[in-house]
Amino acid sequence: MSHTRDLDQTQSHKTLLELARNPFALNKADSLTKQRLSSLICQTDLLALHYAFEHVNEPLLQAFQELTDELKLDEQYQAMSHGEAINQVQGWTDDPVAVLHQLTRGFPEDQSVLKKERALIEGEKRRMKQFLADHPQFTTMIQIGIGGSELGPKAMFRALSAYKQPNRDLRFLSNVDPDHAIDVLQGIDWRHTLVAVVSKSGSTLETKTNEAWVRAQLETAGCNTREHIVSITTPASLLDDNNKYLTSFYMLPSVGGRFSSSSAVGELALRFALGNDVVDDFMAGAKAMDIQCRLTDVRRNPALLAALLNIWNHVYLGINNLAILPYTQALDDFVLHLQQCVMESNGKSINRVGKKLGYSTSAILWGSPGTNSQHSYFQQLHQGTTRTSTCFVGFKNPQNERASNAAHVALNNNLIAQMVALACGRKSDNPNHNFDGNRPSRLIMADRLDGRTVGALLSLFENQIAYEGFILNLNSFDQEGVQLGKKLAQALEPNQDALRAQLGPLQDVLLDAKHVFLGD
Amino acid sequence: MSHTRDLDQTQSHKTLLELARNPFALNKADSLTKQRLSSLICQTDLLALHYAFEHVNEPLLQAFQELTDELKLDEQYQAMSHGEAINQVQGWTDDPVAVLHQLTRGFPEDQSVLKKERALIEGEKRRMKQFLADHPQFTTMIQIGIGGSELGPKAMFRALSAYKQPNRDLRFLSNVDPDHAIDVLQGIDWRHTLVAVVSKSGSTLETKTNEAWVRAQLETAGCNTREHIVSITTPASLLDDNNKYLTSFYMLPSVGGRFSSSSAVGELALRFALGNDVVDDFMAGAKAMDIQCRLTDVRRNPALLAALLNIWNHVYLGINNLAILPYTQALDDFVLHLQQCVMESNGKSINRVGKKLGYSTSAILWGSPGTNSQHSYFQQLHQGTTRTSTCFVGFKNPQNERASNAAHVALNNNLIAQMVALACGRKSDNPNHNFDGNRPSRLIMADRLDGRTVGALLSLFENQIAYEGFILNLNSFDQEGVQLGKKLAQALEPNQDALRAQLGPLQDVLLDAKHVFLGD
Repeated sequence: MSHTRDLDQTQSHKTLLELARNPFALNKADSLTKQRLSSLICQTDLLALHYAFEHVNEPLLQAFQELTDELKLDEQYQAMSHGEAINQVQGWTDDPVAVLHQLTRGFPEDQSVLKKERALIEGEKRRMKQFLADHPQFTTMIQIGIGGSELGPKAMFRALSAYKQPNRDLRFLSNVDPDHAIDVLQGIDWRHTLVAVVSKSGSTLETKTNEAWVRAQLETAGCNTREHIVSITTPASLLDDNNKYLTSFYMLPSVGGRFSSSSAVGELALRFALGNDVVDDFMAGAKAMDIQCRLTDVRRNPALLAALLNIWNHVYLGINNLAILPYTQALDDFVLHLQQCVMESNGKSINRVGKKLGYSTSAILWGSPGTNSQHSYFQQLHQGTTRTSTCFVGFKNPQNERASNAAHVALNNNLIAQMVALACGRKSDNPNHNFDGNRPSRLIMADRLDGRTVGALLSLFENQIAYEGFILNLNSFDQEGVQLGKKLAQALEPNQDALRAQLGPLQDVLLDAKHVFLGD
Repeated sequence: MSHTRDLDQTQSHKTLLELARNPFALNKADSLTKQRLSSLICQTDLLALHYAFEHVNEPLLQAFQELTDELKLDEQYQAMSHGEAINQVQGWTDDPVAVLHQLTRGFPEDQSVLKKERALIEGEKRRMKQFLADHPQFTTMIQIGIGGSELGPKAMFRALSAYKQPNRDLRFLSNVDPDHAIDVLQGIDWRHTLVAVVSKSGSTLETKTNEAWVRAQLETAGCNTREHIVSITTPASLLDDNNKYLTSFYMLPSVGGRFSSSSAVGELALRFALGNDVVDDFMAGAKAMDIQCRLTDVRRNPALLAALLNIWNHVYLGINNLAILPYTQALDDFVLHLQQCVMESNGKSINRVGKKLGYSTSAILWGSPGTNSQHSYFQQLHQGTTRTSTCFVGFKNPQNERASNAAHVALNNNLIAQMVALACGRKSDNPNHNFDGNRPSRLIMADRLDGRTVGALLSLFENQIAYEGFILNLNSFDQEGVQLGKKLAQALEPNQDALRAQLGPLQDVLLDAKHVFLGD
């Protein structure tokens, strides 16, 4: 990794700063020509990234390519795919590890790479299929997990629930909020319920709490708990215990929680609910996109291009937030999953050797499906003072064969109209009817939201995050920023005297706050 | 309204700019004393706003009070409550109207104010109760509407669904996405289903499309559609038609969609699902908070104080986004509702006479429930470069009597720990374990999430939005920014030649974009 350097230490940085003084304007009469619209497209087998509505021109694309070459991003991508221990801050991380979520869908294709890890993944895939075939009595599944163990699998399931198998009910139990548990478990038939407890270490507070609650419910219902509960964990963890679990499915320690949708963490639940064909398509779509995202030509690699566009908008044009706007209700949870992936990965402020970075890193990622969002916050997108860059996601066809075609046409008409309105604006003498325009957006368009395109979308965003991290020169794969809050919460539990002492004066604020907030 | 002026034209503006050069630091050893924590609390009957973890000190609070007095915010609040036509941009709005959502819960108390409107509201309340009592055969209700006709009612229902009446199923159908309609209507027993179509004018595309779809389903199921469908609309609208609807319930034209949760728009569905006692509590809680928010003392009026804090963080300290973080899963939709209310109301850039404003107006509002969010984007909140201000919401007790007390204690311990961690940070030699702290937050704490506190929360945020608009000197109650996109979408429908011609060159970009994006 010796060739990594901070973005503001690159040659290309000066070019980008210069170009940012006069970015391409979207709201002039001849800005958006048909020629431009037809050429600024990154087309792949499963989806197209349209970027004519971004502040992009030919010199900028050249600068993107120069930066890509200068930072040897192809080598960095390969280092990740081939299992180098890139998850580290050099000199500060005790135990550097590899980043192997791509391997869960069979990338890289070269079977001689990462043989041992590949064998584990493939073995677990076979075991999961067999397990589900052997246990047809389970018609409901509850996945207990939080963060990456919930958001990703839940988002993939929600995206594809139009293809759900009949008589299969999949629920997710995550929050330590006890009202949430009661709500999720309503009307469960425990005799036909499979529970999967998901945690790498087995020490996550929320997951432990919810597992205990579910075990109590199973017992009350007269069930033998061991016959109903499996774990998904790393070998030799607290959850790797045949006395307590019917079986354990293993995940690699080198697959991060937020990148585990295509690992056993997502796979068991998705195979249970959607069946093997849809999940196999999902894996194939993700793998195909992993292959595409290896390309070094920025115009042909959608993850790399999107990463560069994000950095352009944020670091150079100062737009510190990105709204993801899918025009399908089925991707509502997908936005929340991306929010985690992006902000937990790149919401950092030090580089890969622990030095403070001199530029802004990750934007705020937010958003929700259209057309509903048009009736919510689009007022601000069009006429507000805070600038937002937007990523629309659309599909040429609906998921259901019996869906109204007229409604789907109306849906896409709205998507297209919004992009045009944001970019072009419209002059009016009435200041309340005036739209300045010049607000950037991009569009990811695919044929239909199915297993293959969901896999491709997931891979596209995962790889975009990795490329953003490479370019920003930070480690996208740890999450040290969540530790302090956890420790403080533990200190508020009884019998944690040692921890309390270690926290020093913080402890006083904490206890005072608890007393004042809760009055106890 | 002659006393309104732009914020940067006030006397207090200079004081605030001066104070912003050296805001109160939260991360010094003696910053957060017990005395501070115990005194910076705005306590009301139903909830407390704790603001010791904001960049606030005594001189700032004095400046807040001076600004409040200078802008005569009490008179502006009264002008709204008493029905002055404040929904206008002077000289540019054709038909200025009043802003009467507070009246839907009986505020102001003085019965001689707004007698006609009050009589209509009270009459419709009686009719709704009677209608539901007369039609016990309905066990499922589908509310068809979008934007304010969906988000608010859905959020209130979700917040209170722990108190749902047995054998009542309430669903919301909003998006024109046809897959969404199929998903929402799964497993409906049409014979026992009541449908409410909600639209002020009856001309909303999505609502018309979904109504037609639902009518077709009812007919296929052999039902007489008129016997199953009611409308909630304004008198003499397209939906005010006794031939098509079993009955129509009226809303005031002067209640905006996003402020209509406590009007008939929310009330019918909530009374159906939750029963009259919970809804009466909800109304009482909202009214009590409306009364509290009339106070001119910034330290005793939580809506005014929160509005001033938002403007302080955003306009003066440059933090352009606010995360709402409720520590209860039941408020997940409430955040989305607030996102609409805040961003559609104050995402503007002109003042109340149509002049461009010289400062930033509404921040990006986003967020989701903890502890789940801790496992998602909190990494960025703690160690990212983009600053976020946060509003935590907590409850001393769970909703369900059989909820695990230990889990609820853990939930609140996490909330408190996060606020302390954000504010205090923690020094470490390892830069990856270092937390700078000094990140502001506030906390709204109530006893339990029930009808009364949900009403109070809703009113608190609605009034906060109104105060922010008053201070920023903009009209919070229109939404002209959503019109252009709608017109363009209409132009993509067939047989809209006149509209196409009117749109001029924009039309070419639109048609080209449609061709390129969809290939047709």
